[in-house]
Amino acid sequence: MSTLAVAMCIPAIADVTSGNADWRVFAGSAMLTLFIGVMLMLTTRSTIRHISLHQAFVLTTLCWVITPTFAALPFSFSDLGLGYTDAFFEAMSGVTTTGATVITGLDSAPPGILLWRAILQWLGGIGIIAMAIAVLPMLRVGGMQLFHMESSDTSEKVLPRTAQITAWIAVIYLALTLLCALAYWLAGMNGFDAWTHAMTTIATGGFSTHDGSIGYFASPTIDAIATTFMLAGALPFVLYLRFIRGQRRALFSDSQVKLFALLVLVAVGATSLFLITTLDMGPIFAVRYAAFNVVSMMTGTGYATADFSQWGSFAIVLLFFVMFTGGCAGSTTCGLKVFRLQVLAGTAITQIRQLTQPHGVFITYYNGKPVPKSAIDSVMSFFFLYVACFTILAVALGLTGLDFLTAASGAASAIANVGPGLGPIIGPAGTFAPLSDAAKWILAAGMLLGRLELLTVLVLLAPAFWRR
Amino acid sequence: MSTLAVAMCIPAIADVTSGNADWRVFAGSAMLTLFIGVMLMLTTRSTIRHISLHQAFVLTTLCWVITPTFAALPFSFSDLGLGYTDAFFEAMSGVTTTGATVITGLDSAPPGILLWRAILQWLGGIGIIAMAIAVLPMLRVGGMQLFHMESSDTSEKVLPRTAQITAWIAVIYLALTLLCALAYWLAGMNGFDAWTHAMTTIATGGFSTHDGSIGYFASPTIDAIATTFMLAGALPFVLYLRFIRGQRRALFSDSQVKLFALLVLVAVGATSLFLITTLDMGPIFAVRYAAFNVVSMMTGTGYATADFSQWGSFAIVLLFFVMFTGGCAGSTTCGLKVFRLQVLAGTAITQIRQLTQPHGVFITYYNGKPVPKSAIDSVMSFFFLYVACFTILAVALGLTGLDFLTAASGAASAIANVGPGLGPIIGPAGTFAPLSDAAKWILAAGMLLGRLELLTVLVLLAPAFWRR
Repeated sequence: MSTLAVAMCIPAIADVTSGNADWRVFAGSAMLTLFIGVMLMLTTRSTIRHISLHQAFVLTTLCWVITPTFAALPFSFSDLGLGYTDAFFEAMSGVTTTGATVITGLDSAPPGILLWRAILQWLGGIGIIAMAIAVLPMLRVGGMQLFHMESSDTSEKVLPRTAQITAWIAVIYLALTLLCALAYWLAGMNGFDAWTHAMTTIATGGFSTHDGSIGYFASPTIDAIATTFMLAGALPFVLYLRFIRGQRRALFSDSQVKLFALLVLVAVGATSLFLITTLDMGPIFAVRYAAFNVVSMMTGTGYATADFSQWGSFAIVLLFFVMFTGGCAGSTTCGLKVFRLQVLAGTAITQIRQLTQPHGVFITYYNGKPVPKSAIDSVMSFFFLYVACFTILAVALGLTGLDFLTAASGAASAIANVGPGLGPIIGPAGTFAPLSDAAKWILAAGMLLGRLELLTVLVLLAPAFWRR
Repeated sequence: MSTLAVAMCIPAIADVTSGNADWRVFAGSAMLTLFIGVMLMLTTRSTIRHISLHQAFVLTTLCWVITPTFAALPFSFSDLGLGYTDAFFEAMSGVTTTGATVITGLDSAPPGILLWRAILQWLGGIGIIAMAIAVLPMLRVGGMQLFHMESSDTSEKVLPRTAQITAWIAVIYLALTLLCALAYWLAGMNGFDAWTHAMTTIATGGFSTHDGSIGYFASPTIDAIATTFMLAGALPFVLYLRFIRGQRRALFSDSQVKLFALLVLVAVGATSLFLITTLDMGPIFAVRYAAFNVVSMMTGTGYATADFSQWGSFAIVLLFFVMFTGGCAGSTTCGLKVFRLQVLAGTAITQIRQLTQPHGVFITYYNGKPVPKSAIDSVMSFFFLYVACFTILAVALGLTGLDFLTAASGAASAIANVGPGLGPIIGPAGTFAPLSDAAKWILAAGMLLGRLELLTVLVLLAPAFWRR
């Protein structure tokens, strides 16, 4: 919370320098957050020697609930006139790097608010990468144990080593952000737009400073830069580290990266063909729009350069399912993630082989190594829970009165941390503002579930967790 | 094929007695089918001592492809003016007990055709029960090994014993059909309607003799009878056998039956509440319509008494997901089936427990017994393949130009053998006639996949299957 309070000072400074009275909102929120944070620190001060598995689950979830609770304050206090539900929705959408928004009229919103949204996504992005490296493999949720650092089983060196890796990755994250901002700026964005968009691009978050999203700039160069850096944000950050440490082939020989590239190519190719043949777009236009919007949906960024809800039939059906895919594990993306699809498909093929040779022994491989049975079970259960949670969210949204496409795509968009849904209300041309408060809380819960790989949250709901 | 040819004589007789010239269509089809059948019999005559696992897979799939191929002939030759694609679609929809139709103007269709549709579903229904008892547990597809007859591992008595059980179950199936027909007749249907509807009710097929489906009769009694017998068709038929053999508690202590009852109650209750509060229906009306239509969708029958596409939001979202549920294993229903949901949920809960106690040993139970690891893997892979096949079908349907709701619900309806989809085109008030030929073939493939529990068909697509 203290860190959050410090982060709130950045938009306060931005507002002061641009002569905007909104800086008081941030200063006030920062003071309140800092006060409670410091109080908690003082009252519970003790040296922590060891965190139990139980505490790790509670802390992780708590961290991602408390942050948006306080990060929502500036939205709530500002002149935007958002109620606390809307403010919390926006903050949760920020820290989970979802990118769904309830704010209309972004173009005339105070710069502090716009910067705050970008900062939330940027922090959320690096936060989730750190978690995917340091915490989730330990918690063994949804097959994340596959990404346990090789050496971490053996000694007490675990934490220092993990901390070191995380620090390096934060540097890479910052470097990519700078690079992206520079590219945007050179392509014609002003400094503020370049910064804010760079932060939300690399975090695959998708908050923009304009209602028209990236489409506002109407620049093929900016489209290409955004596409590139969304893809960069969707790759495993550990591999960047290996890459700069000299393992040049790490990035291209990883099976997850290869399949991800293939999925992107197939989806973009199919959508381009559809746009060319059905909507009579020129080939260059079609590829540009297809690449940008498919990558944006698949990586869960949620930028838009076109109202793809209007593309009709095939594009909508494809984009709906593409939302679930996500990027690679250890990136800023959400969704099912490519490695899970690999494990699931591999296991299914193993099963099919087993059918005709009941006594044969078949092994599922991932990235050239056999997958431990426990990891397979983890991934399979994760998949079932993913579909089950999606179903429950969609039915609950239906209960609030939303139509089928809005309810289904809203649930998918929330759980996969994409941002916009499909259809006229929550599609790329709309916002989540018209939804009822109930729907907003349901969607916020979906974002949290999706961001923390479901199980980190679900385990807290098991009565057995709280016994003993 | 010879059996099919004999079955074709029944509608021929019906047409002759009602003085309809259409009897020639059936006589011709029967002769052609019989001719090819007998030719095949004569040319390949030999004593079969043993069927290998490979042959069992090929035979099962072949059986469910050849039957509709020839069963389509009467539709194709008749005055209805159906092309072969439409005729095949109708026949596949019949034998898989789906109930999706391309025929409009059922009320004025020749009785032979109407009877033929009912016969196809009736035969398809008993066919799938026999398969679920005798063949699928042997093939071990999608966890069906859980229903391996207890004594069948030991000796050569397997086949005779299974044959005996199957014969008994056929008798029960016939008895339930008679009972249902009698009830319909007493409730005011004419003899022909009572017979044809009884055959498609117990088979949870859903073909009707009227465009208005069961809604045509506008009778609460008939609605109640249909609801009862749809549920009867969705229970495991083996339990009926145990029940009449004196194990009175078999039917009520089975965990699959209990969960199925619970799911039905919850879905009907929720839909009733929605109809009462949102559409201002009277409570009795609401429960009547909710019970009938939810049971019809859940069991995959596909009858309708109301155009529930018009119920809006919650009802549509709920009915969409309810389609996937299906009934119990060993019934005439399709879909995921309740026992799989139990195994999936049980495994997920086991996983969640495992998270906080990594060294604990947790076991998933089904019906009071621990589920073997191999069966769990089977069910989990089945679930992934189910979602994957649904996705591919929906995307393929989107490619033919269908909108999101039509494509998604059409794919769901086909793979779960429900019948109607949602939305204005293929919803309960529409038919599948307006779809393109490509969409019809895709849907027919989906029906086959769903009916044969996916893996029986998918295994044939594996290159490894055809080696050696």
